[in-house]
Amino acid sequence: MTAPPTPPPGAKPDLTPGVTAEQQGGAAALRPFASVGIVGDGQMALALADLLAFRGAAVTVWSPFAEAAEALRRTRTSTRLPGFWLPAEIAVTADPAGLGGVDLLVNGIPTQYIRPTWQRLAAQLRPGTPIVSVAKGIEIASLRRPSELLSEASGGGGSIAVLSGPTVATELARRLPAVMVAASADPELAQRVQRAFASPWTRIYHHDDVLGVELAGALKNVIAVAAGLIDGLGLGVNCKSALLSRGLAEMARCGAALGARRETFFGVAGVGDLATTCFAPEGRNRSFGEALAKGSDAQRLLEAGSSVVEGPPTAKAAVAIAARERIEMPITAAVHDIVYRGRPPLEAVAELMARSVGAERIG
Amino acid sequence: MTAPPTPPPGAKPDLTPGVTAEQQGGAAALRPFASVGIVGDGQMALALADLLAFRGAAVTVWSPFAEAAEALRRTRTSTRLPGFWLPAEIAVTADPAGLGGVDLLVNGIPTQYIRPTWQRLAAQLRPGTPIVSVAKGIEIASLRRPSELLSEASGGGGSIAVLSGPTVATELARRLPAVMVAASADPELAQRVQRAFASPWTRIYHHDDVLGVELAGALKNVIAVAAGLIDGLGLGVNCKSALLSRGLAEMARCGAALGARRETFFGVAGVGDLATTCFAPEGRNRSFGEALAKGSDAQRLLEAGSSVVEGPPTAKAAVAIAARERIEMPITAAVHDIVYRGRPPLEAVAELMARSVGAERIG
Repeated sequence: MTAPPTPPPGAKPDLTPGVTAEQQGGAAALRPFASVGIVGDGQMALALADLLAFRGAAVTVWSPFAEAAEALRRTRTSTRLPGFWLPAEIAVTADPAGLGGVDLLVNGIPTQYIRPTWQRLAAQLRPGTPIVSVAKGIEIASLRRPSELLSEASGGGGSIAVLSGPTVATELARRLPAVMVAASADPELAQRVQRAFASPWTRIYHHDDVLGVELAGALKNVIAVAAGLIDGLGLGVNCKSALLSRGLAEMARCGAALGARRETFFGVAGVGDLATTCFAPEGRNRSFGEALAKGSDAQRLLEAGSSVVEGPPTAKAAVAIAARERIEMPITAAVHDIVYRGRPPLEAVAELMARSVGAERIG
Repeated sequence: MTAPPTPPPGAKPDLTPGVTAEQQGGAAALRPFASVGIVGDGQMALALADLLAFRGAAVTVWSPFAEAAEALRRTRTSTRLPGFWLPAEIAVTADPAGLGGVDLLVNGIPTQYIRPTWQRLAAQLRPGTPIVSVAKGIEIASLRRPSELLSEASGGGGSIAVLSGPTVATELARRLPAVMVAASADPELAQRVQRAFASPWTRIYHHDDVLGVELAGALKNVIAVAAGLIDGLGLGVNCKSALLSRGLAEMARCGAALGARRETFFGVAGVGDLATTCFAPEGRNRSFGEALAKGSDAQRLLEAGSSVVEGPPTAKAAVAIAARERIEMPITAAVHDIVYRGRPPLEAVAELMARSVGAERIG
């Protein structure tokens, strides 16, 4: 078992002019979680470990893989995040017992792997430990959201929060500015998470619509596939911006039908995240759509990257929801048909443009 | 006087599979305006002339400059729109009388020049002719919107509509897909304009919130300056997407305070247009912000391109509105201070990130 390290004496963050002491984590009294365990060693997990250590928390990164943990501990670098150095005071372990005593758990495991990974941890976790998740998407087999999976996996005793927004992890790791929401049904946890993750480069709003934030984070991957199709077909910025706004209306409509708040989709975790997903070149769902438009075979692409390209299975789920709730989601349906039924992308675009029009409906 | 030409006999649009006859303008009975006069010879004016001619209308382009009209008529090309050919059946004139008999006038004159240009035309226009405007922005001296200026300039007898959305003119001229809204207080005009401008490459919704559509088209230029600052400082896609979502919230808040509908800002003419303005590299307001961040002098930049960089004066107007209505517009205020008070952009970003946070408020 790895004991959670304490910050070395005298270690304190740089003081940036114009930034409050609270945001810099200078005052221990304002530090909402003294120790944090990060579940996962991917890009987001590492970027958040750095952030929380800067804020003065004692951070332990847990990797599902013993060899990866050993390499990360020794080299303080990761091939997943070139140019990043993991601060020396952060502990790294592959032993679930290393997470046993922490005040907060951060889930950085991708949605499709949450269930098996957290099953390995369950016995070692202190019951009732709050969890904050940065996973986006829905579990394909069960259509469950990350917060639901984590609530089950951790025995249901603790509060769950989700942290979401436009966060390309490589930028976050470089400490470039980012804005997120911390959403929880437990308002006290939402505000504690807000304080814990606020820093000179991260601005966090608290939020109470967990359902809306998680649905937005899943549904945007469908629109991102369509954005990639538009890029691959060379249809231009006007077309992609129209997609963004009409895709957003579909997302909000679906969310409202399922009980989420419409405004959530027009905020940082909705349209903010959607903009990054549609315009950042590195996105996996956008890249998948672009490759498809350029003639790659959908089935082969999905087999090669099935666990990380979540737009297509999410489209499948959303098409079923739209049918059940009797709502229109024409862009989502087009993505579904292009991926799973071999529909030519240009034909789908022509049909979308030619649908009968009326007054603009938002959500 | 140039007589409006009629379409050559037998001229009919290509039939694209899956596109309705109405959208292709095939049926004269469905053609809402038989003749259209385009006021202006800029990029948008030419792209729309092409679109309306394709839809079967008899189109006359009026240029404010006799020499430019002569060159355009002779060469069918414009240095403002490389690669574009003006269809042979479109008439070109610099004589205001050429617009006298048309069924619809399209304003393609930029906002700051609407008043003097339309004063030259007023005596020749048939009273009551409907006008649709594609100008964005507000008149700096009077804070009046394009539809208000046009209503005054044309004697106030006819209905006014505005056409807005993400429309980089060079893409529209290449007939790449675009989605717009046609807004008017006169619902019949909004629907006629919708039909007139619908084509295989343009999808138009009708809308009734003229105020919201015009405010969105003006306020987005302020956010675009901030997007350029972010690009110039190299702050990344996360930061720009956060700006987009929080800028949108400011725009919606300002619009709601002035009586516009909040949802308008979350639609095609709001967030759709904002996305294009923040992400398309060619935008003048975005480019202005980028040059500023890289050390150019604001005053010199404004003097060089004062008539087309409308973000800074719009920021000035919006700051006054925010003070009067007691609403928060921190991004708009930062742009104002950076441009007019020499505030260092990075300092403004640090302060925006460090403002006290609470629950996310949309609009």
